[in-house]
Amino acid sequence: MGRGKGGSLLVRRIGRLLTMDRPEDVEGIRDAAVVVRDGKVVFAGPEADLNRESVRDLPILDAEGGLVVPGLVDCHTHLVFAGSRADEFEARGAGLSYEEITRRGGGIMRTVNATRAASRDELFEGAIPRVWKALALGVTTLETKSGYGLTLESEVRILEVIRDLDRATPVDLVPTFLGAHAFPPEVRDRRVDHVRAIVREWIPEVASRGLARFCDCFCETVAFTRAEAEEVLRAGLDAGLLPKVHADQLSHSGGTRLAAEVGAVSADHLDFADRQDIEALARRGVVGVLLPGCAVSLGQTRFPEGAPLVEAGVKVALSTDFNPGSSMTQNLYLTGTLAMAYMGMTVAQTWAAVTCHAAEAVGLGHRVGRLVPGCDGDLVVFHGDDPRIPFYEFGGSHVARVVKRGVVVVQRSRRGEVSFADGD
Amino acid sequence: MGRGKGGSLLVRRIGRLLTMDRPEDVEGIRDAAVVVRDGKVVFAGPEADLNRESVRDLPILDAEGGLVVPGLVDCHTHLVFAGSRADEFEARGAGLSYEEITRRGGGIMRTVNATRAASRDELFEGAIPRVWKALALGVTTLETKSGYGLTLESEVRILEVIRDLDRATPVDLVPTFLGAHAFPPEVRDRRVDHVRAIVREWIPEVASRGLARFCDCFCETVAFTRAEAEEVLRAGLDAGLLPKVHADQLSHSGGTRLAAEVGAVSADHLDFADRQDIEALARRGVVGVLLPGCAVSLGQTRFPEGAPLVEAGVKVALSTDFNPGSSMTQNLYLTGTLAMAYMGMTVAQTWAAVTCHAAEAVGLGHRVGRLVPGCDGDLVVFHGDDPRIPFYEFGGSHVARVVKRGVVVVQRSRRGEVSFADGD
Repeated sequence: MGRGKGGSLLVRRIGRLLTMDRPEDVEGIRDAAVVVRDGKVVFAGPEADLNRESVRDLPILDAEGGLVVPGLVDCHTHLVFAGSRADEFEARGAGLSYEEITRRGGGIMRTVNATRAASRDELFEGAIPRVWKALALGVTTLETKSGYGLTLESEVRILEVIRDLDRATPVDLVPTFLGAHAFPPEVRDRRVDHVRAIVREWIPEVASRGLARFCDCFCETVAFTRAEAEEVLRAGLDAGLLPKVHADQLSHSGGTRLAAEVGAVSADHLDFADRQDIEALARRGVVGVLLPGCAVSLGQTRFPEGAPLVEAGVKVALSTDFNPGSSMTQNLYLTGTLAMAYMGMTVAQTWAAVTCHAAEAVGLGHRVGRLVPGCDGDLVVFHGDDPRIPFYEFGGSHVARVVKRGVVVVQRSRRGEVSFADGD
Repeated sequence: MGRGKGGSLLVRRIGRLLTMDRPEDVEGIRDAAVVVRDGKVVFAGPEADLNRESVRDLPILDAEGGLVVPGLVDCHTHLVFAGSRADEFEARGAGLSYEEITRRGGGIMRTVNATRAASRDELFEGAIPRVWKALALGVTTLETKSGYGLTLESEVRILEVIRDLDRATPVDLVPTFLGAHAFPPEVRDRRVDHVRAIVREWIPEVASRGLARFCDCFCETVAFTRAEAEEVLRAGLDAGLLPKVHADQLSHSGGTRLAAEVGAVSADHLDFADRQDIEALARRGVVGVLLPGCAVSLGQTRFPEGAPLVEAGVKVALSTDFNPGSSMTQNLYLTGTLAMAYMGMTVAQTWAAVTCHAAEAVGLGHRVGRLVPGCDGDLVVFHGDDPRIPFYEFGGSHVARVVKRGVVVVQRSRRGEVSFADGD
């Protein structure tokens, strides 16, 4: 929506501005202003440095002394799906394992069956409130994967819905092809043929139609072997889809190392990655994406570790992993709360992880995730100027305004009224 | 606000109604209706059983097939305070212990100092958005404690602010006197005198002015001994303030047993309560209030256990424990998520814990927390009829409408617009 030249806006009276140009800096710039022209940042700095003459024509957004950060990037979600798996959440709480639940007909295939049965309209109608909810939280860029179709036709349908969501809302959706999410039962006896179909038919079709930017693969003992994953990811690369990997989530199965070898944009999960894996990511410049929401959905108290990645020099991103099975949350601030409480991450690292590093995890580090001249005018204004508060005070939202390409798209009062700028 | 005769309303097309008359039942009543007249429930049952002639005069709220539950009761909060302790949250994440932080000038006394320095207006202005946020989540009854003043004058000021918040919003605030929250440094050398002042001066003053309904005490090695706590609680009882106890939170220090002995309305925290303590609660009919948000704020993976309490026959309530030090969250659904994921509680137990059992924990079980004739017409309508969803999908809200005494006070769209009925 509104992908034209973008809006123009002066954001003034910013109490603290985090441009994320230096991600380790959460002191930021006090008494700052941001100027957006035609959707792009043209100034971000102390308000005193602003040439007032140059902005006399602009509408003004008063930040009222609040914190301003770049629009958030949720860099790993699966938000197009049908059906619910609320009963599995309850069953896990009662002591059933994920494996036992899958044996009883739960797990990914349950969502796949519901998603295959849904029409494109039904998928769109189910997903669109989720996109608006993300926007209300300040997420202006949203990676979304296919992977609940697992036939060419249904994978394409999901990717078309992602494209439609991108067109129908102010949020930029970044589409990732995850046809290699699981082997559906009907192909389990012919894995080689199935991988060949993905490589020779699905990927070329998806890529030639421009339906995805990335090719992801679930590399895991219960999903694609390392060799199969490599075949899929290299075929994606050949077709122009940059690799991402679901890596070492449930066991040390080689996905992180593979991500480094193929030069993936990101390696995601990393719960069981070891030190050598992490060093390989650092050397190759692969972003590490950590997804602590899974622990809560799965009732586990083991969280992925952030500190070793940071120490090794890996850029760390955080994401909700929003999906109906293992991480049913859209609250990226809560993800940050878990990172600070349980994963050894500082507030500076946490902000970088949901802005500039997350932008790099979706190949958009040049355009979003920072507020510097030339970048998109995507930003979030908060009530209050303390950068710790959105993570410290958890389970809610401190957003005051959301701006997408220079246009105010969300307004939120201190006591919690929310309205969208399109007014419907 | 609006404490007159209350509104009248027909809520129809309820997909699933949990009256909580039988707390173990989450099947509820399908295709139901609720009728509120003059603020009180006069009918709650199958819509087919409703005499249509009798409701022709009523305004209609269409629940659109959604789940309806009694208005939520958050039965243990400390929401009147000044200052922030966001830096302590960050410091704990970096590895500092709660004790070390207290030694460096953090902890309860930091909030006490900020709260003492704040005017009554400042305390009110700081707290009122929190009350509205709670209401937007469906909390229609909200217990709130003093305890950040720790002088008679400042404790009274907090209780007056609680009374003002009750008058200024649709939420019913239930005031609890927690003068025995900690020994401030200036009295640490004369504990006996301080307890005597609380017993002989503070409690009679608070009670005679009608500023509190309950008298709470933090019974803990770092706070009030069991003997001191007993003295305070019995003085409260003598003055007509029913007892509540912060019990066995940090160590097995006897608070739970004391709660049973004095016949407290509730025993709260219970992290270190043993089996005999729990059996004593059950025998005496004391509600057990569990507060898992603390674990997240404190970065701990040990959660209070729900199942042993339920098995012993204790009525279990859940609450946010909203406070700036150890549980900075207002999201009672997230509390429920933690209960289901980590504390062995079923969805039925979790709903009871935030409605009827929480109402009993604030002595209002006859009036709120259930939707049966004679109770207050406080209810929440959700998007969708699955009672697991508000806990399964965490970190957000599924509320569609909030009704307080028959008046619609909050509206929330599926994609997340929120408005309050007073329109300002």
